[in-house]
Amino acid sequence: MPDKESVILLAHCPDKQGIVAAVSEFIFNNGGNIIDLDQHVDNDSKLFFMRVEWSLENFQIKNGDLQEKFKTEIADKFDMNWKIKFSDEKLRMAVFVSKIPHCLYDILARTQSSEWNVEIPLIVSNHPDLQHIAKAFGIDYYVFPNVKKDKLSIEAKQLELLENHNIDFVVLARYMQILTDSFVSNYPNKIINIHHSFLPAFAGAKPYHSAFERGVKIIGATSHYVTAELDAGPIIQQDIVRVSHNDSVDDLVRKGRDLEKIVLSRAVRAHLSMDVLVYNNKTVVFDN
Amino acid sequence: MPDKESVILLAHCPDKQGIVAAVSEFIFNNGGNIIDLDQHVDNDSKLFFMRVEWSLENFQIKNGDLQEKFKTEIADKFDMNWKIKFSDEKLRMAVFVSKIPHCLYDILARTQSSEWNVEIPLIVSNHPDLQHIAKAFGIDYYVFPNVKKDKLSIEAKQLELLENHNIDFVVLARYMQILTDSFVSNYPNKIINIHHSFLPAFAGAKPYHSAFERGVKIIGATSHYVTAELDAGPIIQQDIVRVSHNDSVDDLVRKGRDLEKIVLSRAVRAHLSMDVLVYNNKTVVFDN
Amino acid sequence: MPDKESVILLAHCPDKQGIVAAVSEFIFNNGGNIIDLDQHVDNDSKLFFMRVEWSLENFQIKNGDLQEKFKTEIADKFDMNWKIKFSDEKLRMAVFVSKIPHCLYDILARTQSSEWNVEIPLIVSNHPDLQHIAKAFGIDYYVFPNVKKDKLSIEAKQLELLENHNIDFVVLARYMQILTDSFVSNYPNKIINIHHSFLPAFAGAKPYHSAFERGVKIIGATSHYVTAELDAGPIIQQDIVRVSHNDSVDDLVRKGRDLEKIVLSRAVRAHLSMDVLVYNNKTVVFDN
Amino acid sequence: MPDKESVILLAHCPDKQGIVAAVSEFIFNNGGNIIDLDQHVDNDSKLFFMRVEWSLENFQIKNGDLQEKFKTEIADKFDMNWKIKFSDEKLRMAVFVSKIPHCLYDILARTQSSEWNVEIPLIVSNHPDLQHIAKAFGIDYYVFPNVKKDKLSIEAKQLELLENHNIDFVVLARYMQILTDSFVSNYPNKIINIHHSFLPAFAGAKPYHSAFERGVKIIGATSHYVTAELDAGPIIQQDIVRVSHNDSVDDLVRKGRDLEKIVLSRAVRAHLSMDVLVYNNKTVVFDN
Repeated sequence: MPDKESVILLAHCPDKQGIVAAVSEFIFNNGGNIIDLDQHVDNDSKLFFMRVEWSLENFQIKNGDLQEKFKTEIADKFDMNWKIKFSDEKLRMAVFVSKIPHCLYDILARTQSSEWNVEIPLIVSNHPDLQHIAKAFGIDYYVFPNVKKDKLSIEAKQLELLENHNIDFVVLARYMQILTDSFVSNYPNKIINIHHSFLPAFAGAKPYHSAFERGVKIIGATSHYVTAELDAGPIIQQDIVRVSHNDSVDDLVRKGRDLEKIVLSRAVRAHLSMDVLVYNNKTVVFDN
Repeated sequence: MPDKESVILLAHCPDKQGIVAAVSEFIFNNGGNIIDLDQHVDNDSKLFFMRVEWSLENFQIKNGDLQEKFKTEIADKFDMNWKIKFSDEKLRMAVFVSKIPHCLYDILARTQSSEWNVEIPLIVSNHPDLQHIAKAFGIDYYVFPNVKKDKLSIEAKQLELLENHNIDFVVLARYMQILTDSFVSNYPNKIINIHHSFLPAFAGAKPYHSAFERGVKIIGATSHYVTAELDAGPIIQQDIVRVSHNDSVDDLVRKGRDLEKIVLSRAVRAHLSMDVLVYNNKTVVFDN
Repeated sequence: MPDKESVILLAHCPDKQGIVAAVSEFIFNNGGNIIDLDQHVDNDSKLFFMRVEWSLENFQIKNGDLQEKFKTEIADKFDMNWKIKFSDEKLRMAVFVSKIPHCLYDILARTQSSEWNVEIPLIVSNHPDLQHIAKAFGIDYYVFPNVKKDKLSIEAKQLELLENHNIDFVVLARYMQILTDSFVSNYPNKIINIHHSFLPAFAGAKPYHSAFERGVKIIGATSHYVTAELDAGPIIQQDIVRVSHNDSVDDLVRKGRDLEKIVLSRAVRAHLSMDVLVYNNKTVVFDN
Repeated sequence: MPDKESVILLAHCPDKQGIVAAVSEFIFNNGGNIIDLDQHVDNDSKLFFMRVEWSLENFQIKNGDLQEKFKTEIADKFDMNWKIKFSDEKLRMAVFVSKIPHCLYDILARTQSSEWNVEIPLIVSNHPDLQHIAKAFGIDYYVFPNVKKDKLSIEAKQLELLENHNIDFVVLARYMQILTDSFVSNYPNKIINIHHSFLPAFAGAKPYHSAFERGVKIIGATSHYVTAELDAGPIIQQDIVRVSHNDSVDDLVRKGRDLEKIVLSRAVRAHLSMDVLVYNNKTVVFDN
């Protein structure tokens, strides 16, 4: 973690010669010093991916001008899809929950103890059960009870709420509802879900029951960006834990809880750190 | 590992009170000393599973009489499905391969160095490619080239070969052929396969390609008993290794090789040690 | 997890023939049904270890009489070191902390959400920093500032507090103080510590700095019972996470946090479940 | 893996602005296309590390001239410590063994099956026990029996042998002898050892016995470059496996075998792939 302020560039574009040279020259010629540079080429799609962080200490370009200068001098030349984030920006995150608390506790603890540099203006739920947790951590909690046939109007209200609070991204912390495509399309690659299986195995409902039925010796958890297709979005993080014939479905649920909260948190952290690029329904996760 | 000779009992039966008491009394009253006892109750199926190993040092029942006495005094009473194996018995294993050598090398190295107490009378293949390995380890190698429409007659010859060599169980060490149900039915829960994915994800052909396509962050390998349904038999062992966007399909294949040989070998060892009980298309693997 | 009430026996004694038979007969003859039985023989020390759980549904011996009957009929005969716990007993746990909150958050979340069946009457600290967390979870927080030369009198007050609250065991959740032998001797094998290294590597202060200096590729965390010798007590649980040259000391600290809370919680859970037996400065941890 | 020929540059130097820009310009201006670029800055030592692989397809500099041109135009300017390797070079490796075969089998299998692009001209041992394996794989096997007080003259003969065979690096595949400083100084960061513990825990003799005594719940293996100080050289790879109270020392030895061969092989592969840079008794291992 750098002491001085820094900026992170995340970019992808068609691969061609000279991209690294051009970007590093741009930074160097303007007085920046590269702290971290990671690049990746996908040979199938011939795409080039890059994450560069550089110090602003002696950087000559003002923060307000960087966007425009980089666009003109570099990005347009290479047809880049790109974004930058200054190290002192604080993203705003909404958390969606149902009745299961362990991921919520974990997220709130990390935020309250400044492990993460993020703002949580609100928690959304379809049940009042976890309201006391939100209260203990001093965060507003909005309940939208499930009403059949009324999903779209509920989501409309939720979207309005998110917009009013300038939410940058959404975390589904064991939110047991399926979002409509329309909702998802408002936050492309900005809704992170935790699925309690080692995807693509056991997508859909009750994965621990299915894992038990199949007699697997390892269970997993998967964090991914939400897309229109259920449990099929780009995977950000996965991890596993061993199980045995001794483990009942309840034991899988218990062992899975720790997995879920860790795997979800790693994804949130990667998102916050600008480590994740999405293409082709897959992710490049630069290990920053 | 006991110095003196010992015997292992593997049994399952409907759960009821007093099974452990009856078996341990039987052993105790006949002068045996329990070295290891493991039991498991499956609450769904109400089945009881047990693995007991006891020392024969002061055991009063002769090896030749044990089968009969245990049947009459214990097994029949509890309606047990059971088998016993004396520690000095050496099982006979056949290995089936195609063109990929790493699992074969690993199996032969373990056997030649006496890591395993097993006899390998023969290797069967549909290609001559690995013959030189068999030769270097001094084992007969039989080639049955794939002939369309002639699968059953080839399998008939293979079965005859296995029978002539008194083969106890078969290991498919990256054997890229699907066995017919008829073949499999000759060796129920006695054919061990290694599948190069974390089943049930990516069953069937080219799992590393599918894993790459899906963008998973972890790949796996699964050893299982072969049943009529492809890649759906009872799972014995699984393990995983991390991958990233940096890994091409070739990298997955490379990382997977080490997984495959370790996971297959753990299954073979568990089978040899009488650690595995099968029921309901699942396994109980007692960690001996 | 059994629906009906059950009881757990944890016992060890010199190994001899017939222990399993005697115990399982005792349970069976009194109408109990064994839910889970695990045993272990340590061949070096010739000690026998056992954990048995049985259902009280049709058990003929009253809870109040079990202690006495088991002692007379079984324990005394085999010279057993033993204890029993009924499934509805709730242990009382004290948590000691300093300034680092992640383990405390994790413990309180598990307790408040009933993941654990435990009572936390109080939190003890040498700093006021985490008082707000205790308050949010509604638990009393006692501050004993470090005063040089006054350690024993502070500990005396702490011990009095623990006694007044009928504390059964103590968890050091990143408590950065060393307890005196005298304090420890009051809670033998009842104080659980989390050390932020893979013991015995990097015992003592600043293990992440030492791990960074040595250039290890994996870091670990270790939960253990506290004994007179620093970081040398019986190990209950360990786990690890990969690191690389990319990771600074700060990164090790960050990655370690998740390890620490998981490894500490697994130890607390094992302790609560009567899964842990201590002998010879080592543990038998029955995987219940 | 690139189809066309490529070249890998491995370099480190004092960190300063513009290194990445200069190197990538050098490659770009001469018609090379970067396949993979990885860089790392060690903030403590202010050192810059880099691994770049580029395609030679349209590269204008002849292989024979690259060394000189890179030196003049780049390396000297940045005071670089560097080396290059063309993708078609085949390194020559000597393997040292004692009586334990599993690592040797694994190395020979990988080499014979072309998993590795390496030449093994000879195997050196202090015992004749593994001669039959060398023979089966068609490799010369030289026995130098241990003779007290004669270590230096034996090593002198071994060094002569290595020199005569143009050996590039040495792998100690469970070679149970300690090499003298003088021997080691001939192959700095070119002798790879596998130690059967999770270093720095349990350095020296009989680590599995020590691990058993301490009651650890995880054991490990460590591959490292050999230096003058025993088991204290720069760590290349580590991995672990879980153990429990059920595992005897023999079980640790058995479980450790698979770890040892995998962890040693990962180190050999990293060395062959020019992924490893050493500084300050630590390694940078670029995950190629």
